[in-house]
Parts: sequence; C-alpha cells; structure tokens
Amino acid sequence: MATEPIRLFVTGGTFDKEYDELSGRLYFKDTHVHEMLRLARCRVETHVQTLMMIDSLDMTDADRDAIVESCRSASERRIVITHGTDTMAETARALLAASTGKTVVLTGAMVPYAFGSSDGLFNLGSALSFAQVLPPGVYVAMNGRVFAGDRVRKNREGGIFEET
Amino acid sequence: MATEPIRLFVTGGTFDKEYDELSGRLYFKDTHVHEMLRLARCRVETHVQTLMMIDSLDMTDADRDAIVESCRSASERRIVITHGTDTMAETARALLAASTGKTVVLTGAMVPYAFGSSDGLFNLGSALSFAQVLPPGVYVAMNGRVFAGDRVRKNREGGIFEET
Amino acid sequence: MATEPIRLFVTGGTFDKEYDELSGRLYFKDTHVHEMLRLARCRVETHVQTLMMIDSLDMTDADRDAIVESCRSASERRIVITHGTDTMAETARALLAASTGKTVVLTGAMVPYAFGSSDGLFNLGSALSFAQVLPPGVYVAMNGRVFAGDRVRKNREGGIFEET
Amino acid sequence: MATEPIRLFVTGGTFDKEYDELSGRLYFKDTHVHEMLRLARCRVETHVQTLMMIDSLDMTDADRDAIVESCRSASERRIVITHGTDTMAETARALLAASTGKTVVLTGAMVPYAFGSSDGLFNLGSALSFAQVLPPGVYVAMNGRVFAGDRVRKNREGGIFEET
Repeated sequence: MATEPIRLFVTGGTFDKEYDELSGRLYFKDTHVHEMLRLARCRVETHVQTLMMIDSLDMTDADRDAIVESCRSASERRIVITHGTDTMAETARALLAASTGKTVVLTGAMVPYAFGSSDGLFNLGSALSFAQVLPPGVYVAMNGRVFAGDRVRKNREGGIFEET
Repeated sequence: MATEPIRLFVTGGTFDKEYDELSGRLYFKDTHVHEMLRLARCRVETHVQTLMMIDSLDMTDADRDAIVESCRSASERRIVITHGTDTMAETARALLAASTGKTVVLTGAMVPYAFGSSDGLFNLGSALSFAQVLPPGVYVAMNGRVFAGDRVRKNREGGIFEET
Repeated sequence: MATEPIRLFVTGGTFDKEYDELSGRLYFKDTHVHEMLRLARCRVETHVQTLMMIDSLDMTDADRDAIVESCRSASERRIVITHGTDTMAETARALLAASTGKTVVLTGAMVPYAFGSSDGLFNLGSALSFAQVLPPGVYVAMNGRVFAGDRVRKNREGGIFEET
Repeated sequence: MATEPIRLFVTGGTFDKEYDELSGRLYFKDTHVHEMLRLARCRVETHVQTLMMIDSLDMTDADRDAIVESCRSASERRIVITHGTDTMAETARALLAASTGKTVVLTGAMVPYAFGSSDGLFNLGSALSFAQVLPPGVYVAMNGRVFAGDRVRKNREGGIFEET
C-alpha cells in the first residue's frame, strides 16, 4: 500500500539517554533514531529532525509551543514524535488544542535504547505503523497500544500507559 | 482506544532461530515471542500459540493448510503470524484464497532475535499495531511498511519486501 | 593446570548498576556476577559472596574494614573483588596494609553490565585469570592490565587506570 | 606492572562468525577483535593481525605451518591467537612441536561475538591476561581456565575444555 513520507521529530526522553562513563550519570548526546531505523531495516521514508534533547520533566510551555509549531509547519501530513514518557500526555493535549489537521503519534521508551531497550524499538515500529494508517488526530503509541491524545495518562507506579 | 485481543501464531522463521553452540548451526528451540512481548512491555492482550517451528523454505502445502485452518477457527478477529521471510508471500496468498474474514498480518525478521535482532522487535511492534487498526484482509508487515497480501514479494538480493 | 577455587567478593560499583525504569535512575539490586559467569561458560570454581552493593564513592572506612576482614577469613587463597572504580585504589591500599598473605585482585567496570557493558565481562575474565597465576599480593585488573595495589590510580578524565 | 606489547593473531573460528541475512548462513567477514578491544577499553598494547578467517575444522597442515611461522617470526615475545575451538588443541600441539620460545595463548568462543557472545569477551580478557604473566610455553585459555598446550582437549558433548 502506498506510504507517504513521515516526519519524525526527536525531543529526547528516556529513549535517547546515554550512560556517561566518566560521571556515571545519564545524559543526552545525539539521537539513536537513525541507528534504530537502520537496524530495523525500515523502508518507510522518514525525515528525522531533532527539535530538542531534553528530559520531558524539564519541558517548558515554550518547548511545547515549538513542537506544535514544528508539526504545523511540517510539509508531511503524518508525524511521529519521540518524547519522554512523564509529560507525553501534556504535549498530546497541547497538540490537540492546536488542531494541526495532521496525524501525529507520540511515542517513547521506559528504558534507554543504549541500555539494550527492547521497548524503544518495539514502540518505534508501533508508532510508525499507526502513523501510516490512522486518520488526522493526536495519538500516543505505547505498550503496543494506541491512545487518543485526550484520553491517556502515564501510570507512574506501573510504568505503563492507560486510558482515562 | 478499545483494543481487541490478538491471536499471535508462531511458525518459526529467522525470527526464532537460535545458535547451537555444540554444532555451530542455527536451529529452532522455543519461540522468543513471549520474551519479546515482555521486554517490549506490551499491554495488548495477545494469545500466543506455536503452530510449527520451521524454516519457511521447508513449509509444505499441508503446513499452509494448517495455518489457514488455525486462522479460520481462531476466536479472535485479529491475527498476527510470525513467519520466515522466504515464503511469507506464498502463505499470504494461501490465506487470501481462504477468505477468513479476519485481519491477518504476517511478519518476520531478517536477523534472529537471539542475534540481537533489531528488526524482529521493530517488526513485531509494527505488525501488532497494523493488526489493531486495519480492516479484514491479509497483510505483510515488514520494514515498517504494510503490504496487501496479494501485492508483495521479497526482494532476495536486497533483503527487503516490496510491492509487486 | 590445576586451579584452586576462587572467592569472588561483590561490593557493587558500576559493574552491577541497574536502570530503574520507574524513577529513571541507576540503582543496585542483585549482582550480575552469577549470570556473567554462566554466560562466560566459566569453569573455574568460584564462590561468590555479596559483601555490600554500593557506589564506591559511598564506601566508608568501616566498609573497607569489612572487606579486609572478609579477605582475611576466607578459606580460599585467591580472591577477586568487584568494586566501584572511583575508590578501588583506596581499597587496594587498605588490603595491602592488612597483609592478608593472599592473592587479591580488584576489578570493576566503566559501564554497567546491564547496559551491555563489554568491559565488565572482559575485566571479569581478566581478573579471574590474573588471580589464578599471580603470587600473593594486592592487584588491580582493569583495561586488560594488572597493577600493583600500591602503584595504581584512576585517571578520571580519561576513565582509565594507570601506574603511579 | 610493566606490560610488553602483545601480538594478537586472528585465525577465525566461532569468535568471528557473522550472520548473513541474505543467505541465512553464518560466514566470515572481518574480525571483531578491534571492536572488542575498544569496547573493553583495553590499554594493553596489542598488534592485531589477521592470518586467516576460517572454521578450524577446515584448517589444513599448511594453515598450521603458517600460524607457527607467524609466531616464530613475530617480534613480540607474547602472543594471543583467536582460533576455532574444534581444532584448537591440534594447533597448540603444532606450536609446541615448533618450540618458539614464546608465550603463546590460544583462545576462542563457543558463541559468535556478533551473537552477543559473552564468552568471547570474557575469553579475550582472560587470554590477554594469561599472556602477560605466564612463562614461555603454549597454552589454551578457555572457560576462565588455562591449560598446558599438550594436556587439553575439547569435550564436544559438553562444549567445554578439559585437562587430559
């Protein structure tokens, strides 16, 4: 079936955290999305663009405005956003309020890809798939499921996403 | 959004190959699908059932009949089948000819999961996602894309799937 | 060649750090040494004992006394200690001062094993090997090299061990 | 303690086997030893040289002569050889017969490094360590142990090395 190109916006989150062996802390360097798409042998045309590399707990209203504006001005009609899980639902609501008219799917990971994360690869495959077939709207793709952007929350005790 | 349970039929293929350290050969033992779903933190209700554990080059007409019959008699309306890539398109055509009235998505991997396969995890996330939202029909989910079951072939030189 | 049993004391360190997916922080749970020895197909008789599970920056004089005392009272004459890299040299000096009369080899890792650490496995293989053949004394086995316990320091800028 | 440079001869073996995703077979391309030493943060001066890339079951007398001659003519006095496990003991005996006067340590792996082999990394760390401290002679370093070259055999049922 025909596939349209997908814009893939990177914003950071657990997905892209690295281990700094000198400080012993987790930090951000470059996104792993390119490597993940290559190892996945992904043949969907994706245009990857890093908007920011931050923990989603540090995401400000200005950051969310930048994400919304990037979605609005993207030439693609289908968009995937990698995002920290803690405030993914807030960004989904900001995107909903902005009514971009596009299919926007947010995804992330509970474990960094660099830590051998299985959920990052699985979620990326899931998000790119939902983004190809769902109608315009804002969605969260986590745990193999897809949630409407205004009816999702992270259950922090369980580390999973659930419907509200 | 509401999710129905998905039946996940395992048939073997590269996906599930293991390295036998005594003989130095690749072989089949148990499926890795349970472990993959666990590491992926998958929360879609999946009912995993191993139908066979074979290289798809060794798949006979009787094997394909068994797969078709299993899809027909499954109580779920949405089905994912893990399958060797070499004859995935043949099995898709056998399923199409049988008109099960269900959404059936075949997927696989170019590299064994036990070999640190990134495409297995990515493809599993992709197949489970397409299976949740596509209308009844037979599909192949590989390389992040989804193909209609009667319009797909494996390009063996490139190791990718493409539309016919 | 005949091998004596080796006592393997676990004290924590980067070696054994895990990623807590709920808090997004690194923490200690159980040691990975058993799993590492199993995957390494190690056939040296090792008696693994966890003395503590701490970051070596948090190691107190009392902790070091406990390590020294454990080495002294062990029935084995050959001992490997997994240890955080930051104060490994201090513990080596404490062991030297105590003159246990045994062959004691300290080792660790710059990257957690759970993070796909290659240096943890390599260093464990190295430390167990040096411990089998070196005469009584205190040694640090890091970066494939072995250092006398009183002539070693961690170069924190480079993340490597060097002779003093 | 002072370390001499070590010559590291690569001959192939399970250690270096890769998965060919087009044919589904294991094969040899380039050695992984450089990458392994880098990930291990190894700081021993090693001079890596690929002599051949073959399954040790395919090793001929001429191949063994070439290995012996390479050891003899190497300027280093300490040598590690990566080698398939099936005929590692035969090569050890050929080296013993040649009396090179050097410390030669053979090692290998039961699982390919590219298959996430833990024993390859562990064995490499072990072999490089034994090579630094053992007197001239021919040794096999496998399973964390070291064997005299004339008193070792592979137990093929168990997949381990043992003394004869």
